Amino acid sequence: MRAAVYKGNKEFIIEDRFETEPSSDEVRLKVAFCGICGTDVHVYHGMMDKRVTTHRVIGHECSAIVDKVGDNVKNFSIGDHVVVRPLVPIGDCYACTSGNDHICYNLKFLGLDCDGAFQEKWNVPASTLHKIPSDLKLEYAALIEPLAVACHDVTRSRLVHGEDVLVIGGGPIGLLIAMVAKHKGANVIVSEVNEIRSSLAREIGFKVINPVNEDIEKAINNYTDNKGANVIFEVSGSSNGVTAMTKCAAVRARIVMVAIHGKPQSVDLFQFFWRELELIGARVYTSDDYEDAINLITSNAIDCEKLITNISSLDDIQHSFEILDSSDGAMKSLICCNN
Amino acid sequence: MRAAVYKGNKEFIIEDRFETEPSSDEVRLKVAFCGICGTDVHVYHGMMDKRVTTHRVIGHECSAIVDKVGDNVKNFSIGDHVVVRPLVPIGDCYACTSGNDHICYNLKFLGLDCDGAFQEKWNVPASTLHKIPSDLKLEYAALIEPLAVACHDVTRSRLVHGEDVLVIGGGPIGLLIAMVAKHKGANVIVSEVNEIRSSLAREIGFKVINPVNEDIEKAINNYTDNKGANVIFEVSGSSNGVTAMTKCAAVRARIVMVAIHGKPQSVDLFQFFWRELELIGARVYTSDDYEDAINLITSNAIDCEKLITNISSLDDIQHSFEILDSSDGAMKSLICCNN
Repeated sequence: MRAAVYKGNKEFIIEDRFETEPSSDEVRLKVAFCGICGTDVHVYHGMMDKRVTTHRVIGHECSAIVDKVGDNVKNFSIGDHVVVRPLVPIGDCYACTSGNDHICYNLKFLGLDCDGAFQEKWNVPASTLHKIPSDLKLEYAALIEPLAVACHDVTRSRLVHGEDVLVIGGGPIGLLIAMVAKHKGANVIVSEVNEIRSSLAREIGFKVINPVNEDIEKAINNYTDNKGANVIFEVSGSSNGVTAMTKCAAVRARIVMVAIHGKPQSVDLFQFFWRELELIGARVYTSDDYEDAINLITSNAIDCEKLITNISSLDDIQHSFEILDSSDGAMKSLICCNN
Repeated sequence: MRAAVYKGNKEFIIEDRFETEPSSDEVRLKVAFCGICGTDVHVYHGMMDKRVTTHRVIGHECSAIVDKVGDNVKNFSIGDHVVVRPLVPIGDCYACTSGNDHICYNLKFLGLDCDGAFQEKWNVPASTLHKIPSDLKLEYAALIEPLAVACHDVTRSRLVHGEDVLVIGGGPIGLLIAMVAKHKGANVIVSEVNEIRSSLAREIGFKVINPVNEDIEKAINNYTDNKGANVIFEVSGSSNGVTAMTKCAAVRARIVMVAIHGKPQSVDLFQFFWRELELIGARVYTSDDYEDAINLITSNAIDCEKLITNISSLDDIQHSFEILDSSDGAMKSLICCNN
């Protein structure tokens, strides 16, 4: 079977490997589609070589069909359609014992800390699997992992119907958050500097601000009768996004920190005091977020077609990363792992 | 009657003024004691001249006895012992209409935006008053305003019994927060750089870290079995405090922003993402916080004696500000406004 192996320095090679038997608590999957995550692009750029090493199969946003089950696995059968929640908590740290094992102090992330989904067959712990309906398009199901991120972010925000939401950053995660928030009855505004992404957000039906062309604080005040946004998602990972997040906040607004800021940022802490703002960190997802995401996708609440801008075969993974890396307008690229 | 008037440039003068009649919704108070707040020291330094102007009677941490009531005032009588919650919200902004009038977008703060308590008689809206027991020492009652700040901060933190708490900054507000948290069953550690304040915090019964002498992250990890603190109060207003607040945080810790950071600070946003931290702004207090503070003081849950380090007469207010401003170890200075 074929596996795409990351060799370091922006290079993948396709290797022929033997299928391995699942251990007693594992399931062997025939991978259907696997999306390229922003994290995978970081890996491609060599930013995570120390953690990932340079002979790793990456990929974690996949849909799959059960190919074989280990002896102790009771809840899954050959032919089941599934998605993978790629988290393996260790179980004995404070995060795990306090009900937050999704952010275990020593979390193992499949596709980073061990091999992932950019291969034809993949053995994973049965505990990571969620069943999906067999009539759900497997291309769409590959969006369940990033959609679960969005569900987690919206849950963390304590959003209620009718609130004004600002999403700073209109990439795949930002637009999924916007869609989930809209589904929950929010008035959603997206801030995005890239005109191609802005156009897509408008096509999907969102109000869009381009902060390069207009003052974001004024625009939000116009939209919200000078109140500010109740909920703000900082998804841009930029210092401008961090400046905007406090400027656009209503009294008692909740700001959800979705982006990964690799270095400390200058934050207007006075506004936290003055308007009693909250900053809420959000990372990955829980099992419930996965079920929420599956329900949203299954009920057609998410416009998957608009988000999937490219599908390539496993053999073309190198080209697919190159296109995604150089394209201004690309959103979600999928790799078809069995064709 | 005498009134202490702020003249700008670190100067107060004592003026003789006529008593004025309370308007129909006002109460005239005979002020008993009024504490000097950190904000009052900022005023003294000229930092707030634009807002406060330079012919203002400041002061807002007072205990008092009702001297006369306006025609429409029903709930108060001459001789009642009271404290003042010095907030006058305007009532029509989003904060007010959403149940947060304590942080009204156009809040009027008594003792800053209009005359305050450093005078013998003071007319205030009846809506700002809370009754206190007549057998409660009026010196202690002057601590109710800062204690209400502490109650508000602890309420905002969602602290529960048994949690590990770090208070960064052991001044009057920091120690009041520590006392309230301890009363709620928390394990409290205070971080303070000043040795005199550190000693006082130890005397009151807290574990104390001096981050000048020891690594605060290591110390907190030692105290908490490598978990980190569940709740952190940033009261120091320093960049070192801001650095420490994310370093010492357990998974899902709540960090309450009590301090007023006049300029943006460098914040490790990655930790908010990684450990799903929350930053919660907290400003002033609600009516409920005042009732909580009155109950705590009345039930002797707060060590008032240790916090009150100076009591001066109104005539000596200039000297009292000078001492407080130059002293390393001073905590709460009270002005006796009728003697």
